Amino acid sequence: MKRMALGAHFPSMGQHVAAWMHPEAQIDGGHNFRWFVRMAQAAEAARFDFVFMADTVGTRDGDMRALRRWPQYMAHFEPISLLSATAAVTEKVGLVCTASTSYYEPYNVARLFGTLDHISNGRAGWNVVTTANVSASHNFNRDAHYDVNDRYERAREFVGVVKGLWDSWEDDAFLRDRTTGEYFDPAKLHALNHEGRFFKVRGPLNLARPPQGQPVICQAGASEDGMELAAETAEVVFLSKLRMEDAQGFYANVKGRMAKYGRQPDQLKMMAGLNVTVAPTEAEAREKFDYLQSLIHPDVGRELVSVELGGADLSGLPLDGPIPWERIPTESIASPSRLAAMRALVQREGLSLRKLYERYAGSRGSAQVVGTPAQVADMMQAWIAAEAADGFIIQGSFFPGGFDDFCQMVVPELQRRGAMRTEYEGASLREHLGLQRPVNHFTVRA
Amino acid sequence: MKRMALGAHFPSMGQHVAAWMHPEAQIDGGHNFRWFVRMAQAAEAARFDFVFMADTVGTRDGDMRALRRWPQYMAHFEPISLLSATAAVTEKVGLVCTASTSYYEPYNVARLFGTLDHISNGRAGWNVVTTANVSASHNFNRDAHYDVNDRYERAREFVGVVKGLWDSWEDDAFLRDRTTGEYFDPAKLHALNHEGRFFKVRGPLNLARPPQGQPVICQAGASEDGMELAAETAEVVFLSKLRMEDAQGFYANVKGRMAKYGRQPDQLKMMAGLNVTVAPTEAEAREKFDYLQSLIHPDVGRELVSVELGGADLSGLPLDGPIPWERIPTESIASPSRLAAMRALVQREGLSLRKLYERYAGSRGSAQVVGTPAQVADMMQAWIAAEAADGFIIQGSFFPGGFDDFCQMVVPELQRRGAMRTEYEGASLREHLGLQRPVNHFTVRA
Repeated sequence: MKRMALGAHFPSMGQHVAAWMHPEAQIDGGHNFRWFVRMAQAAEAARFDFVFMADTVGTRDGDMRALRRWPQYMAHFEPISLLSATAAVTEKVGLVCTASTSYYEPYNVARLFGTLDHISNGRAGWNVVTTANVSASHNFNRDAHYDVNDRYERAREFVGVVKGLWDSWEDDAFLRDRTTGEYFDPAKLHALNHEGRFFKVRGPLNLARPPQGQPVICQAGASEDGMELAAETAEVVFLSKLRMEDAQGFYANVKGRMAKYGRQPDQLKMMAGLNVTVAPTEAEAREKFDYLQSLIHPDVGRELVSVELGGADLSGLPLDGPIPWERIPTESIASPSRLAAMRALVQREGLSLRKLYERYAGSRGSAQVVGTPAQVADMMQAWIAAEAADGFIIQGSFFPGGFDDFCQMVVPELQRRGAMRTEYEGASLREHLGLQRPVNHFTVRA
Repeated sequence: MKRMALGAHFPSMGQHVAAWMHPEAQIDGGHNFRWFVRMAQAAEAARFDFVFMADTVGTRDGDMRALRRWPQYMAHFEPISLLSATAAVTEKVGLVCTASTSYYEPYNVARLFGTLDHISNGRAGWNVVTTANVSASHNFNRDAHYDVNDRYERAREFVGVVKGLWDSWEDDAFLRDRTTGEYFDPAKLHALNHEGRFFKVRGPLNLARPPQGQPVICQAGASEDGMELAAETAEVVFLSKLRMEDAQGFYANVKGRMAKYGRQPDQLKMMAGLNVTVAPTEAEAREKFDYLQSLIHPDVGRELVSVELGGADLSGLPLDGPIPWERIPTESIASPSRLAAMRALVQREGLSLRKLYERYAGSRGSAQVVGTPAQVADMMQAWIAAEAADGFIIQGSFFPGGFDDFCQMVVPELQRRGAMRTEYEGASLREHLGLQRPVNHFTVRA
């Protein structure tokens, strides 16, 4: 049976919008380091490839009547610090998090992820985002966000600079030879001398080359520009599709663009976000799922749909009626691809406002499955077999319970089927994922 | 006996320019996480207030014939990541590091140090620097460094923004109340709405207020602007003076400026850099010191003096002759105060190039002492009694030996004299240092 890649996403109290309302959820999850360590260690014990932390660089803007009931992405730890700390108390599991190319400097990003890679002995991954959250711009000297095209052009240049900086010191640049008194070989130290549209960065980076050569580059963009950037530079792509057929299309589309960059399809692992509710029987699983759904406050539901619809004004609309088509924006500066997905869903199924937020409450537009361990494993394997994904990012509905259920019930099932490892074979995230260690581009040129 | 504050500075292989050449030095110190943890745990076992990591945002520019023999500040871990990781495997010791106000964004700095403070349960400190290293500018889209005045004006504004952001959420803003469904109280969440000369930052910060209210603000600037900024905002100042009388003058100068900002002198701890070589007898200590001095390569010595003299061209000068006065620059964009200190030393003592680099090789312009445990403790207590310092940053000549010697010989001596704690009384860095937890400025205004 084909092996699948597995990551675990740990957004604060859980992925479900009402996660924190669950009586068993860790209620201070976004600010509790020991809790996070416990989750990462659980993922490691279950032999996940990596844990993943998303990020934003600002609080969420919106209706405070809703937001006070919806703490997700309002306040939480900065993830690079969090994963650096977690590196010290885990041994094998990969450590992946988001950093924005719109609101960081490439030199700093190269140092932060490079250091995480050293500290963790080669377990770091960087999820490259351009930041969808418009309000973030106000925290960084700007009145408005970069437009989508500029964001991706900046991201592309940014990633190139960071990868170039990681190569500053060749792998064997440090001689550390007391007999000659030479600590390093200056011939193996390289300035980058980058001058582009957005950045001018001389280098070299003041950090030895990371153990992985380069931390693993991840991306999630689903727009045209995002798919093109992924095809050129990403090694892991997080895909977010409710339906398998949509995931198949996306999978083929991105992998089909790789050849023109001289890349093979298996150099990019396509990983689908998946919200799992599992129990020994289907009825119990359904009951668990329905319970969480019952905790959604209508204010939160309305706000959720408004956000996904690019800031649509849904005030005054009845919960159980359809959303008038003219209330739905045609453009979104935040995330055009997410708006398009939801427009398509509304058009296809004509859902009421309530049905729409219930559909998005658990997985936020990613796939979801409710069932027995065998049913969940069947669904996952079906996606792999259909080339809809190479693996999954498991999104627990609430923590720790929703994730522990997956580890205790689904992981053993996948292991029995040979779809998941039972022990780590390698040490680095690249080894876990079957990705090559990149050659230093300075040595290729020579 | 008056208690003194103690920090431990861990620059890669040691503070001495020839540290790595010592046969017992950890030769990969700048890139070895387990080594750093061992050092931090040693500092914690000795009941230090904090460990400190300096930083630069670029490799050192200079003569590669010298630099290949002088790895300090060429390549090393990014310190915020390093201390975040260290937080997970220590319990009490404070964690202080440098971040540049010239090459970071205040929103990111607020998140990184705020998160470190949460993860460590209130042990974080931020050493605010404007960055002396001119070459750093080339890594951040600039052709030249900010001039000194702009750097300090920017730093002052930067610190204000960061402190303001840390106050975004009042301490009791998070209700986490499942009965009402309210996670936070919007009335206790505050936007900063800062608009200044250098920064425009709306806020709020997407992080709960740090356990310490604000991580401890540290500074080391010794110029007029630096002293003024310290008097206004610093809670710890790192002072670097070879002679007690110079430290006394600096101490009185900075503390004398505090009243106009409504601050008491004991709200700022003046901590002197101190390089210690200690042994059971004075002769053994001297022998240890001379051995390290004998390892200095003349190319490194010449480069060191050139750097401290603001980039003076010393090529072709004989090692054992004086430095011609006209070779010494009168201005330095990097660090005017360090240039001034060295100009004064040259004028006062007329040292040869070799004697000058030997004087700076161990402590880089900070105090140094060579002797028995009692002699070292006497010297330290004399500085405290004379109001030349409130404490010390201990700079081991090489690691681990140079630092372990201090912990094993000098710390027990200081503890016997009542000048140092034998157990931690508090949990936070503020408690260790006797600093108040700041009130949230949003609640003061109300």
